[in-house]
Amino acid sequence: MRIVVIGAGILGASTAFHLARSGAAVVVVDHAHAGRATAAGAGIICPWVADAPEPDFYRLYAAGAAYYPTLLAALGEAETGYRHTGALCVSDSSDALDAIEALARRRAAAAPAAGEIRRLSPAEARRRFPPLRSDFAAVQITGGARVDGRRLAAALLRAAEAAGAECRPGLASLSLHPGGAPLVWLDGEALAADAVVVTAGAWAPALLRPLGLALAIAPQRGQIVHLHLPGAATGEWPVILPPGSHYLLAFDDSRVVVGATRETGAGFDHRLTAGGMAEVLAEALRVAPGLADATLAETRIGFRPIAADGLPMLGGAPGVPGLFIGNGLGPSGLTIGPYAGALLAALALGETPALPLDRFAPLRDVTPQRSAALR
Amino acid sequence: MRIVVIGAGILGASTAFHLARSGAAVVVVDHAHAGRATAAGAGIICPWVADAPEPDFYRLYAAGAAYYPTLLAALGEAETGYRHTGALCVSDSSDALDAIEALARRRAAAAPAAGEIRRLSPAEARRRFPPLRSDFAAVQITGGARVDGRRLAAALLRAAEAAGAECRPGLASLSLHPGGAPLVWLDGEALAADAVVVTAGAWAPALLRPLGLALAIAPQRGQIVHLHLPGAATGEWPVILPPGSHYLLAFDDSRVVVGATRETGAGFDHRLTAGGMAEVLAEALRVAPGLADATLAETRIGFRPIAADGLPMLGGAPGVPGLFIGNGLGPSGLTIGPYAGALLAALALGETPALPLDRFAPLRDVTPQRSAALR
Amino acid sequence: MRIVVIGAGILGASTAFHLARSGAAVVVVDHAHAGRATAAGAGIICPWVADAPEPDFYRLYAAGAAYYPTLLAALGEAETGYRHTGALCVSDSSDALDAIEALARRRAAAAPAAGEIRRLSPAEARRRFPPLRSDFAAVQITGGARVDGRRLAAALLRAAEAAGAECRPGLASLSLHPGGAPLVWLDGEALAADAVVVTAGAWAPALLRPLGLALAIAPQRGQIVHLHLPGAATGEWPVILPPGSHYLLAFDDSRVVVGATRETGAGFDHRLTAGGMAEVLAEALRVAPGLADATLAETRIGFRPIAADGLPMLGGAPGVPGLFIGNGLGPSGLTIGPYAGALLAALALGETPALPLDRFAPLRDVTPQRSAALR
Amino acid sequence: MRIVVIGAGILGASTAFHLARSGAAVVVVDHAHAGRATAAGAGIICPWVADAPEPDFYRLYAAGAAYYPTLLAALGEAETGYRHTGALCVSDSSDALDAIEALARRRAAAAPAAGEIRRLSPAEARRRFPPLRSDFAAVQITGGARVDGRRLAAALLRAAEAAGAECRPGLASLSLHPGGAPLVWLDGEALAADAVVVTAGAWAPALLRPLGLALAIAPQRGQIVHLHLPGAATGEWPVILPPGSHYLLAFDDSRVVVGATRETGAGFDHRLTAGGMAEVLAEALRVAPGLADATLAETRIGFRPIAADGLPMLGGAPGVPGLFIGNGLGPSGLTIGPYAGALLAALALGETPALPLDRFAPLRDVTPQRSAALR
Repeated sequence: MRIVVIGAGILGASTAFHLARSGAAVVVVDHAHAGRATAAGAGIICPWVADAPEPDFYRLYAAGAAYYPTLLAALGEAETGYRHTGALCVSDSSDALDAIEALARRRAAAAPAAGEIRRLSPAEARRRFPPLRSDFAAVQITGGARVDGRRLAAALLRAAEAAGAECRPGLASLSLHPGGAPLVWLDGEALAADAVVVTAGAWAPALLRPLGLALAIAPQRGQIVHLHLPGAATGEWPVILPPGSHYLLAFDDSRVVVGATRETGAGFDHRLTAGGMAEVLAEALRVAPGLADATLAETRIGFRPIAADGLPMLGGAPGVPGLFIGNGLGPSGLTIGPYAGALLAALALGETPALPLDRFAPLRDVTPQRSAALR
Repeated sequence: MRIVVIGAGILGASTAFHLARSGAAVVVVDHAHAGRATAAGAGIICPWVADAPEPDFYRLYAAGAAYYPTLLAALGEAETGYRHTGALCVSDSSDALDAIEALARRRAAAAPAAGEIRRLSPAEARRRFPPLRSDFAAVQITGGARVDGRRLAAALLRAAEAAGAECRPGLASLSLHPGGAPLVWLDGEALAADAVVVTAGAWAPALLRPLGLALAIAPQRGQIVHLHLPGAATGEWPVILPPGSHYLLAFDDSRVVVGATRETGAGFDHRLTAGGMAEVLAEALRVAPGLADATLAETRIGFRPIAADGLPMLGGAPGVPGLFIGNGLGPSGLTIGPYAGALLAALALGETPALPLDRFAPLRDVTPQRSAALR
Repeated sequence: MRIVVIGAGILGASTAFHLARSGAAVVVVDHAHAGRATAAGAGIICPWVADAPEPDFYRLYAAGAAYYPTLLAALGEAETGYRHTGALCVSDSSDALDAIEALARRRAAAAPAAGEIRRLSPAEARRRFPPLRSDFAAVQITGGARVDGRRLAAALLRAAEAAGAECRPGLASLSLHPGGAPLVWLDGEALAADAVVVTAGAWAPALLRPLGLALAIAPQRGQIVHLHLPGAATGEWPVILPPGSHYLLAFDDSRVVVGATRETGAGFDHRLTAGGMAEVLAEALRVAPGLADATLAETRIGFRPIAADGLPMLGGAPGVPGLFIGNGLGPSGLTIGPYAGALLAALALGETPALPLDRFAPLRDVTPQRSAALR
Repeated sequence: MRIVVIGAGILGASTAFHLARSGAAVVVVDHAHAGRATAAGAGIICPWVADAPEPDFYRLYAAGAAYYPTLLAALGEAETGYRHTGALCVSDSSDALDAIEALARRRAAAAPAAGEIRRLSPAEARRRFPPLRSDFAAVQITGGARVDGRRLAAALLRAAEAAGAECRPGLASLSLHPGGAPLVWLDGEALAADAVVVTAGAWAPALLRPLGLALAIAPQRGQIVHLHLPGAATGEWPVILPPGSHYLLAFDDSRVVVGATRETGAGFDHRLTAGGMAEVLAEALRVAPGLADATLAETRIGFRPIAADGLPMLGGAPGVPGLFIGNGLGPSGLTIGPYAGALLAALALGETPALPLDRFAPLRDVTPQRSAALR
C-alpha cells in the first residue's frame, strides 16, 4: 500500500513513522514553511490540569500523554528532546491551588501517567525552579514532562526513513482523479498513492481548497522567547504552569523558554512584535522575577493551526475517498501529535483507530459554542 | 472591472499598479514567501550587452530598460531604489572587450536608452570603481542603471494602493467555477473577479496545478552577498559586468552587492551553502581584489522563477478564460518586470499589449533547444 | 602643537574636530569597544524640560543644544543624523503638563534655541505622533531635535581627518614621563604629544589608574529597542518625552527608537536582559499603544559613563600637566558632547574655555549630595 | 597565599584551576573582550605532525597533548568539549604522506599519547570523513583529538570556583607598589595579592605597558567558519590536517568547523572579511568537496596572541617581583594552554615547574630568526 503524507510537522512525522512501521510504502512531502508550529513550539506534556471541559477532547489529550512511553520505546533513541521533569502549577492563591489539586487528583486517579499529585510550599517550589516568585506555592504533577518539537519530529522522520519511508522536499498540490481520488502533484510529477494524508497545519486550507474542501482552520500566532541563564543547571527544572495560558519551561542547556502569545487574525505575519514580546516577558517576570537578569537568547514565531471550536480534526474527508486529514491540534500539538499520528495511520490503513474520532470530523461545523481554552 | 493579482513581487506589483491606474478594482493577494526573487535580487539594468540571441526576447528585454523613465515619472517619488550610474563590462582581454563594444554599439544605435558606449582604460575604469582589478579595461555603457528590487516593488504597491488597489496578505488557492472561470480563495472566502493574474513566481506551479495547468517553471536559487566598505562613497559607482553571469553592484550606503549563483535542482532550499558562498566570493575577488578587506555584511537567498528554455511566460491560460499568467523572468526580472506588468495589465483589461507576446505563451513546450544564457 | 585624543565617541570626535580645525596636529586613538555609549545612544536634544536643578549643569546642557547650529554649519554636510523635529512632553495630567510648560517657558525665555512652547490637545499630539495614547496631551517645544550618535560621531571624525587629523585604531596605554607628562603607548610605540585628552568614557578609569588617578566614573548600562513600522513616514515625528527617564524617538526609515534602561552595577555586561527588554517595551506601549504591532527590529546596548553626582567631568588632571579629561556626560552625552569637545579643545590648546568649568573638575569628590536625575 | 589572575581564556582558566587546587586564594579578573582567542578557537590536539623545528617548543607542545588525560581526570566531568577522534593528515602526494608518516613515527616512538600511526587509502580515509576529496590518502594518528575551547575554559573555571577561586568580571589595571610589586586595580579598588599572573592574551601589552614592560605580542586574527550538515553523525569524524595551516574539524552536532585565517597587522578589527571567508571556504572545499552543499551556520573571529618568533611566553617579569606572564601560545593555545597553566601556577607558587622555561622568557628579544610555522 502506497501512502503520501503532506506536511512533516509533529503530526505528519508521527503518521509517517507509524505507517512505515506497518509496512506501507510512505512518501513524505514537506515544504519547510517558515513558522511551522512544531519548530517553534515548546512542548508541555501535562493534560491533567488543563482547562478541557469537552470530554472527548480531554480523552484524546490524556491519551496523547499516556502514549509517550510507548512511542519513546518504539523510537529507541535518546535524541527526542523529551524529559520527564514533572510540572508545577503555581499561584499565590491557595484557593486556586486547591481547585487545581482537586482537578489533578480526580484526573490522575484514572491516569497512571500523571504520576503523583503533591502540594509544595513556596520554598519547596523555588528549590525546584529557583527563579520562581517567592510567594507562589505549587501543585506538583510528577508525571509532567517536556519535549522539544524540532528534535522529536526529526527523530520520528529518521525512524520513518529507517523503516523505508521516502522524504521529498517541495511544494505539493492536490487535484482530483476523474474517479474522485486525490492526486498529489510535486515538481510537475503526479505521485500515485492509495491514500493521501494531509497534515499541513495552517497551510492545509489553501492546499485543500482546490478540491472543494473548506477546512475551517486558521493560524494562531505564537511568539516565544528563549532566555539563557549562564551556568544554571536547568536540566531537571520542572515545567511551570501559572494561571492562564502562559508557561515557563527549561531546556537542558541553561535555557528557559517562556511563552507564548495566542494571536488570531494576524495571518501568516512572521514577525516579532513589540506587543507580543512585552506580553510574554511581563508575564514571565511576574511569575519568575528571578529571570530578570537572564539573557534574551532567541525568539521564535509559530503558526498553530486551530479551529474556531478549539477541537482537533482527525478523519477522512467526506466525498474524497482515500483522503485523510489531521489538523487543529493548536497549542496541544506536542502532547497529542504523536498519538494522533498513530490514529491517522490506522485510518489510512483501513483499520479502526483505538479511539472513536467522530467528534473530530475535519469538515464539521466549527462555529464556537463555548470559549475554548485549551493548553 | 474587478481583477485579482496573486503575487506581489516586481511583476505583480507592476501589474497591480498599471491596472489600478487604468481604473480597475484591484485586489493584490500575497503570502510573502521566504526567498522571493524580487526581495533578494540586485537589479542591473543593462540589456544591451546581454547574451540574448533570441530576437523576441531581446526586444522585450530592451523595451523593459527603455520603459524605466516612463515608469519613474508615473511613480513620481524618490524612494524607488533606482540609480542611473552607468555600467562597465570589464575584462583583461581587448578582444573580448572589442566584441562587447561592437555588440553594444550595434544595439545602442537602435536604443537611445543605452546612452553612449565608451572604451575605458584600466585607470579610468578603476577611477569609477576603485576595488577593480588593475589590469581590467572596460566598455562603459552610460545608460546602465541599478535598482533595488525591494524598494521598487514597495513603491509600485504604494502607488497601486494610492490608486485604489487593495492589498491582502495571505495564501491564495485557485479553483474553477462551473463555467470554467478561475476562482480565488483566501481565508475561506471566494474573491469574485472578472480576471485573475497569477504572478506568483516559483510558487505558481503549485498554485495552478489544481486547475489542471502544468506550468513548466522551476526555482533557480541565487545566493547573493552584500559587502560593506565603511566610509566608501559608493553612490555613483557603476554596475560591473565581468564575463559570465556574475556581477558587482553598489548600493548607496557604502555597500557592494556581489552575486550570484544560478543553482537549479535545489528546489526551495532556503540556505546559504559553503559552495555558493565560495563561488560568489571567489569570483568577486577575482574581478575586484580591492574588496578583500570589505566586511561581509549580509547575505540573501532568492528563488528566481525560470523556464527550461529561459524565456518569460506572459499571456492568457488556454482553456481558462479570464486567467492570465506572468512568470519566468529569471535573472532579468528587475529589468523586464515593470514593463511586463504593463503588458499583463493590458491583457487582463482586454486590450492589445504594446508588444506581441506569442513567443511567451505560458503553456508552450519549453524543452530547451539552445543553451539559455540570459543576464 | 601635537595632541593625542584617546577615545572617539561623540566627545572625543568633537574634541579632535575642534583641535584639527585650530591647526593642531591631532592623533585620535580608538579601540572600538563593544558597547560604546555613542553608538547605542538615541540623541534627544531638548534640555529645556530636563530635571536639571544644578545651575552650572543646566547652563552647560543648554549651551550644548544652542551650539548645534554652529556645529552643523561648520560640518557643512548632510550626513550627521540630525533632524529638527520638535519634542513633545506628554502626559494625561494637565497639572503635570502645566508644570512642564511653566518650566519650559521660563527657560525658553533665555534660550532662543528652544523655539516656541505650545500646548497641544491629545488629537493634535497624535496627529504628530500617531501611535501616541489617545488621552495624552502635550507640551510642544519646537526647538527640540534628534541626532543619531553613530552618524554624527562619524561625520566629526571625517571632518577632523579632512583637517589633517590622523585616526589610529588600537588599544592605548598611558604612563608618565620622568618629567611628569603623560605618554601614550600604542602597539609598542610611544606617541609623542604636547597634550593628551582622554575621552574614553566608561573605559577611562582603567586607562588612568596606572597614572595614579582614580576617576570616579562607572558604566551605566542602557538597553534600547528599535521598532519598525513598515510604510510609516516617520521622518517628521517629534521626540516624545513622557514623565520619567524613558523616551521615544523616530528615525527616518520607518523606525521608532524606544529607550532606555539606566542600570548601574551591571559593569560591562554586554547583554540584552529579559528585565531590561520588558521594562523598555512596557513603558513604550504605555505611552504609545499604537506601537504594539510594530516589528522588533534591532536592539542596542550602551555603557554610558556617569559619575555618582551625575555631573560631567571636563578639565585638566591635577598633578599631570598636559593631561585633560572629558567624561561623565551620561544620558546627556549627545546633547552636550559636541559643545564639550569644543571646550576641551580650548583647554588643550591653552585657551580659556567659553564657559567656566570649575564645577566639572574631573577628580572632584563625587559623593552624591542629591538625587541626580538628568535627561 | 593570595594570587590574582588577569584573563580567563584557556591559559588563565587553567592557571586559576591549578592554583586553587593547590590551596591558593585565587581571584580571576576577566573583561570578556570580544574576539578572545579561546572562544573562537577550534582545538586540534595533534602536535606530533606539526612543523615545530625548535626542540624546546616541540617539547612543550607534546607535553601539552600528553597532559590532557591527567587534566580530564582531575576535572572529572563530561562537559569539557574534548573528544578523542584521531587525526588524519591528508594529501594526494604519497611523497608528502611518506614524509609526514616518518615524522609522526619518529615522534610517536617517544610519545605514547600519539597512539598508533597508520597509512589509510583514499577509500579508508573517506569512510572516516565522508566529505573528503576522493584522491586524498591519509596518515592516521590515532592519538589525535579535538577540544572546544569555550567549553573547556568554562569547565576549568567552574572547577576553580568549586575549589574556592573567586571570579570577578571587569577591566583591570596594573600599577606598581612603591616597593616594586604589582598592584591590580578593579572598579576603583586595589586587590591585594602576593602574586599576579597576567594571561590576558592580545590585550596584555596595553595592560603591562604602564609598568614599563614592553610585551612583544600582537594579535593574529583568525576567521573561522562553522558548517552544518543536517543529519550527519559527525561525532566520530577525525580532525583533518591538509598541508599548510588550514584544518577541518567536526563538532558533535552535525557541524564541521573549517579554519582559519592567520592575519597579522589587522589589529583588533573584529570583522568577517570577504577575503578571509573566501580563503577559508576555498581551502575547505579543495580538501573536502563534499562540504559544498553544507549550510553556512556560524562564523567566529578570534585574536590569537603571538610573538614575532612564534614562541610562547611563560615566566616571571624581570624587575617586577611577584608578576608572572603567560602569553604567545598562538594557534597552539588549546593544546598547550592547559599544561602551561599548570606550569604558571607552579611558578606563581614559588615551585620549580616540571619543564625548564628559559627559552620562553616573556621579555626576550623576539626578532624572528626563522619562519615560525606552528600549528
